[in-house]
Amino acid sequence: MKGLQKEDYMQLALHLAESVAGQTSPNPPVGSVVVKNGTIAGMAAHLKAGEKHAERLAVEQAGPLAEGAEVFVTLEPCAHYGKTPPCADFLIEKGIKTVYIAALDPNPLVAGKGIEKLRQAGVKVETGILKEQAEKLYRPFFHFIQTKTPFVTVKTAMTADGKIASETRDSKWITSEEARRDARRLRSRHDAILVGIQTVLHDNPLLTTRLPHSRKNPIRIVLDTHLRIPPEAKVLSGDAPTIIFCGSDAPKEKEQCLKQLDVEVVRMPHARLLIRDVLAALGEKGIMTLLVEGGAAVNGSFLKEGAVQQYIFYIAPKVIGGKNAPSPFGGHGFGKVADALPLRFEKVEQIGPDLKITAAVQKEVPAHVYRDY
Amino acid sequence: MKGLQKEDYMQLALHLAESVAGQTSPNPPVGSVVVKNGTIAGMAAHLKAGEKHAERLAVEQAGPLAEGAEVFVTLEPCAHYGKTPPCADFLIEKGIKTVYIAALDPNPLVAGKGIEKLRQAGVKVETGILKEQAEKLYRPFFHFIQTKTPFVTVKTAMTADGKIASETRDSKWITSEEARRDARRLRSRHDAILVGIQTVLHDNPLLTTRLPHSRKNPIRIVLDTHLRIPPEAKVLSGDAPTIIFCGSDAPKEKEQCLKQLDVEVVRMPHARLLIRDVLAALGEKGIMTLLVEGGAAVNGSFLKEGAVQQYIFYIAPKVIGGKNAPSPFGGHGFGKVADALPLRFEKVEQIGPDLKITAAVQKEVPAHVYRDY
Repeated sequence: MKGLQKEDYMQLALHLAESVAGQTSPNPPVGSVVVKNGTIAGMAAHLKAGEKHAERLAVEQAGPLAEGAEVFVTLEPCAHYGKTPPCADFLIEKGIKTVYIAALDPNPLVAGKGIEKLRQAGVKVETGILKEQAEKLYRPFFHFIQTKTPFVTVKTAMTADGKIASETRDSKWITSEEARRDARRLRSRHDAILVGIQTVLHDNPLLTTRLPHSRKNPIRIVLDTHLRIPPEAKVLSGDAPTIIFCGSDAPKEKEQCLKQLDVEVVRMPHARLLIRDVLAALGEKGIMTLLVEGGAAVNGSFLKEGAVQQYIFYIAPKVIGGKNAPSPFGGHGFGKVADALPLRFEKVEQIGPDLKITAAVQKEVPAHVYRDY
Repeated sequence: MKGLQKEDYMQLALHLAESVAGQTSPNPPVGSVVVKNGTIAGMAAHLKAGEKHAERLAVEQAGPLAEGAEVFVTLEPCAHYGKTPPCADFLIEKGIKTVYIAALDPNPLVAGKGIEKLRQAGVKVETGILKEQAEKLYRPFFHFIQTKTPFVTVKTAMTADGKIASETRDSKWITSEEARRDARRLRSRHDAILVGIQTVLHDNPLLTTRLPHSRKNPIRIVLDTHLRIPPEAKVLSGDAPTIIFCGSDAPKEKEQCLKQLDVEVVRMPHARLLIRDVLAALGEKGIMTLLVEGGAAVNGSFLKEGAVQQYIFYIAPKVIGGKNAPSPFGGHGFGKVADALPLRFEKVEQIGPDLKITAAVQKEVPAHVYRDY
């Protein structure tokens, strides 16, 4: 690894960070590489909230080589006491000469303060290396810090003509085994998965990752205004925690029954559910990333309420047709093409025979409406 | 160009052929390169049906250098007298040493006979160079030769959630200016464009290429069972030829009126139209490639009748939603996911902010039904 440029080391640090995305919430995934005389002396990622930060682990690994070394870190080192002491102080104390940073931390407790502290102590600081790539990685974290609500990704699997089922409601399977496995991998990178009660009643999904070497299953969230969920629904199994959101009028006895099944029921203040309120409640629980796998009704509400930051479309190479075959987004949608939610296609991948399109939302549409699920 | 491999020369011949795709119908686009002592001595494409074939033009260009030269040609040279004398005889007469061929001609009048004739005269023949690429180029021609009907491409422009308009039927514009220009370029590579009467009544399109340096406009085809087309419809303008297909019961007076506008009216034998019959009639007119830009009804019929060989989807980075917003394929579609028409995604391109997905049909579904348009 001799003779590398700083971008190469930062790229390595970003790889380390990306490898732990989804297991660090509500902390961001961070990677760090320590370089001394053109040789890697330490490298690490922050593994879990509450545990040591990446730059601290990497510098500890470098041991006495840290003195006069360069540290590459994907996110600005913290300058405040959180669950661990400030990393900026630690880097100063260990005699680090230069710190290279990819993205600045928008957290008001950090924001520039880490850099300021380092510079005041005579440490050279350079920012913005592979900034764009890092900011993409930190989009969920930045969103969470700034809005206190989860970064929402809506995932849908459809035919090439935009159908999630046939006119007779047959939907097994639209996409390939490979794409469905990829979608379960997507689940494993999220803190929580959300569906509507219609999906539970119609498909009875388990909503776990079912991956051989998977990290923990994400929390399962069900929107169920009237608590219609049957106690034998698979989503209530012990394989992962489940939270059910219901309206203020939902039957009390059903709530009791669900609580006995160790399921958390969150009764919202209105008779119908507002996506914004649900997201605020999830944010309070430290859920940083939410994957919405709703049916058409739930997807349509998230769309209309401007509550989505990212869309992932799995597109199968088939045409099913049918004027009344269901589309991924229900409700009334937007009345004018000019009012449609603008996306930016960020990535197109081939997954088995299918395509996977990742798209970022260009702006958010604020239109919050109370609805039944 | 010294020291090139035979694949390089064939690639050049294929480029020449591809550049004239769409202007040679009902002949296939063919390119040819003559090489003498590692130097290009001639190159040409077949420009227009009735004019000289590519290998003849290229060999003529080589003049006395043709003696002992190698000829690269994208399609097997003909051995029969058509509008021009057989190319195989010409190559033998000019003393060509070796002929390299990309694709064999499925035309029973040619099929292997050109090669046989060349070999019998002592010319070395090697086939299959860049075969896959050539067979892709000749797919429309092969289809036309084998079925006597045009190679059908259905083109549709939709949002990322598969909608061709909003719930209120607003559709201007789903895709970007760049994608719309690309779609007009697509028109210029087809012999004919087909729409249904609904599209004429609703959108009143001109259906020309409107490209600054465009070749001739394709023939415009309208499916109009009851001859409801208004005489002032733009598609009846003199910018390009127009053919209207109507059912056996369509009003005679309207037919007269349209004929006075120099529009061809084809009265079909049944009261309702059958896509298969329309395609057979178009095949008889020498139309090798047909671009269907129908609304949902026409697209749905082509889908259900298994009459499509290729689909091109322009996908705009927007989500419009709406349970009742129209999708590209109307009718009832297929009842089971397992019965959906299987495609193979062949190409994904970014056109401006949009995606263009080209997909080949994996098999044809024979289900011919008479319908109104």
